[in-house]
Amino acid sequence: MQQGTNLPRIGSYNRAVVLGAIQVSDGISRVQIAERTGLTAQAVSVIVRRLLDDGLVVEDGSAPSRGGKPRTILRVDPSAGYAVGVHFDPGRLHCVLADLAGRPVAATVATLRAVPEPEAVIRRMATAVRRVLADAGVPARKVLGIGLACPGPIDPRDGVLLSPPRLEGWERVPVRHMLERATGFQVTIDNDATAAAIGERWSGLGRSVPSFAYLYLGSGVGGGLLLDGQIYRGRTLNAAEFGHLTVAPDGPRCHCGNRGCVEALCCPEAIVAAAHARLAAGPAGRLAAAWKRDPRRVGHAQICAAAAAGDPLAAEVIGEVADHLAVAAVGIINILDVELLILGGPALREAGEIYRRTIARAIGSLTIARGLRTVAVEISPIAADAAAIGAASLVFHAAYAPHLTSLLREGSYMSERRQPPEAPPAQAPTARGARS
Amino acid sequence: MQQGTNLPRIGSYNRAVVLGAIQVSDGISRVQIAERTGLTAQAVSVIVRRLLDDGLVVEDGSAPSRGGKPRTILRVDPSAGYAVGVHFDPGRLHCVLADLAGRPVAATVATLRAVPEPEAVIRRMATAVRRVLADAGVPARKVLGIGLACPGPIDPRDGVLLSPPRLEGWERVPVRHMLERATGFQVTIDNDATAAAIGERWSGLGRSVPSFAYLYLGSGVGGGLLLDGQIYRGRTLNAAEFGHLTVAPDGPRCHCGNRGCVEALCCPEAIVAAAHARLAAGPAGRLAAAWKRDPRRVGHAQICAAAAAGDPLAAEVIGEVADHLAVAAVGIINILDVELLILGGPALREAGEIYRRTIARAIGSLTIARGLRTVAVEISPIAADAAAIGAASLVFHAAYAPHLTSLLREGSYMSERRQPPEAPPAQAPTARGARS
Repeated sequence: MQQGTNLPRIGSYNRAVVLGAIQVSDGISRVQIAERTGLTAQAVSVIVRRLLDDGLVVEDGSAPSRGGKPRTILRVDPSAGYAVGVHFDPGRLHCVLADLAGRPVAATVATLRAVPEPEAVIRRMATAVRRVLADAGVPARKVLGIGLACPGPIDPRDGVLLSPPRLEGWERVPVRHMLERATGFQVTIDNDATAAAIGERWSGLGRSVPSFAYLYLGSGVGGGLLLDGQIYRGRTLNAAEFGHLTVAPDGPRCHCGNRGCVEALCCPEAIVAAAHARLAAGPAGRLAAAWKRDPRRVGHAQICAAAAAGDPLAAEVIGEVADHLAVAAVGIINILDVELLILGGPALREAGEIYRRTIARAIGSLTIARGLRTVAVEISPIAADAAAIGAASLVFHAAYAPHLTSLLREGSYMSERRQPPEAPPAQAPTARGARS
Repeated sequence: MQQGTNLPRIGSYNRAVVLGAIQVSDGISRVQIAERTGLTAQAVSVIVRRLLDDGLVVEDGSAPSRGGKPRTILRVDPSAGYAVGVHFDPGRLHCVLADLAGRPVAATVATLRAVPEPEAVIRRMATAVRRVLADAGVPARKVLGIGLACPGPIDPRDGVLLSPPRLEGWERVPVRHMLERATGFQVTIDNDATAAAIGERWSGLGRSVPSFAYLYLGSGVGGGLLLDGQIYRGRTLNAAEFGHLTVAPDGPRCHCGNRGCVEALCCPEAIVAAAHARLAAGPAGRLAAAWKRDPRRVGHAQICAAAAAGDPLAAEVIGEVADHLAVAAVGIINILDVELLILGGPALREAGEIYRRTIARAIGSLTIARGLRTVAVEISPIAADAAAIGAASLVFHAAYAPHLTSLLREGSYMSERRQPPEAPPAQAPTARGARS
């Protein structure tokens, strides 16, 4: 049933709209905010006064205006609040501290042993969180919370990882709760691809467009969606699973149970397997020589680099991956009709530009409404760190972004919000929850 | 830039929310409306008073309540307003008059010559509109407008058909403007699949769910989307083109320029071609006998009926079509994470249940988040007339449904609204525009 709305909800929604307008700008005046948001000058003035009082926004010089009277420029104060972003991918733990502008101010990366135990990983995460705070000299009271990006699928109601691929033994692990207990901070969890998309929305390529799709290449292939200004998650928060579009119906079996999924054909493991299979046929060339010395020397990174450098065998393998991604991208645009497709994630590597070109060409020549629109295809400038920075953005997004759903019901944008952590430990006594 | 909102916009939005709550119910009390919409009892009471005064809603008996005091039941008055729905598909013109409850009260179907001229088609449409009004005895002043459903893609800004498939010579035809001039009614245009989805939202299977995808089988294959309570159209109103998902990358060329699209493999023309190719190999059986007498006797309708009746050759052809549709459906659910997939459109015919079973099985066993949700797959009870009834619903939806975007900017849900018709002809002197 569609929900009605009321005056108090409008107030906090409009506040988020104004803060959002300031955040996505590179400095903006009150008059420009009114123009861009459709709010009256008076409403903008009242809201900005409160944002200044709260210290979220600062006045930063002035700009000339048409009328001659200079206008005061407003900016978000990057040091007004921080969030920790944790990206957990099998084999790797990446932790950043980001300021309110979404910029990383400290980071740490750790390699994990194969199939680590949940408790050990949580301990490593808590250590990494303490480390980035200490490195940056940011006190816990200035931290709004932790964003945790994990491989999907997740169960949003309980903050639980559901038997993620490549993590045998991780079945229904309540990572959110465990990390809250271990750190004392409130934790916002999402899958890595959605986190990357939200990061792009908060401080990247997605700041100024109403709709985009994000194709995320990590150890798996995922996606994120911004539709009509709102992050779209689907009914169970498992939308945008671009990695499980079928691009080869008779293709190899995917761990999801289906055949010929993008992920089964385009993930680093599949790329390495495809290259090694060809190398086994005994071709000449530098890659073949390296492979003969030690097959482990021809990993995903080496194959991407070789393809970008023009090695024929690597270029053929990466070219086929690009073709599969392009089939999926055409489907994504035909279904979603967005104006921007962002490519990101650590597995882009040097192959990113090959993927981008192939995908852009396919979208420009094969989508049904190509005569009506131009779809930009762009590589995220923070592609490799997108999930960790995005994880930090989860916290800002939950706390500050204008969520239409908040207009329509009590509480914030995730209605399944649960209790705060049980016992905040000593190292973070004044931590505030992202939505307290 | 995300838009702010204000009090007057809330007023009309909440009015639409209350009207919507009454419309989707089978009779509802004021207390229930307050419960379901989150509005206060007082706000509901004021809004209902106005809806009663405007004649859109009637009090219709009472129901016992927990407290003992009977509650007055409210219903939309079906005769408070009407809309004409016109579905134009190459070869066929279907026109219905629907009451405010979305029920057809008069209808006419005309077969068109191959590749008719635009002017001739518009004249036929205007005749059909006059005919259904006369048949039902509904005066023009009670008609809110005409909804026109056409094969996509369309240009929404101008109400123009853009070189639709199977309509050679129809390039950039301003059908909306032409039909407005010919009838004097304001015309709302959309593609047939979106119209069918809106019809389902207004008075069908989609009344009580927040999200669904609609897979439309007509002369082509299209789709419609309801996401989080709102019809999703995409940036250029060309979203949900499910017919152009690739399900066989090496498959036949599609008119869109791509290969192996759902539409190229699953449209009636393709089904007939596949069956005829097999029949040419000379198998035994009733279908083969009919084909030998006259290939034209084995059309799409006959093949669907034969498959449903167990004819092996027809069942094999329809089974392959079902498999292709299932690949697309799994992709749709993996991208959109909706809880309901509706199948509809005139090309379902007797094959509908075969398609439904195959698609439901695939979604239940092959989507990535299948452990987290159940997705219902249902055949629209008005499958064959979905586009025409849906076209009428376009008018009601534009006038009465709660559009979140109306909270956020001036005007109604399509910001590209244009001028009313130039010169209302004599036969409809008091016609009102849907959004006047």
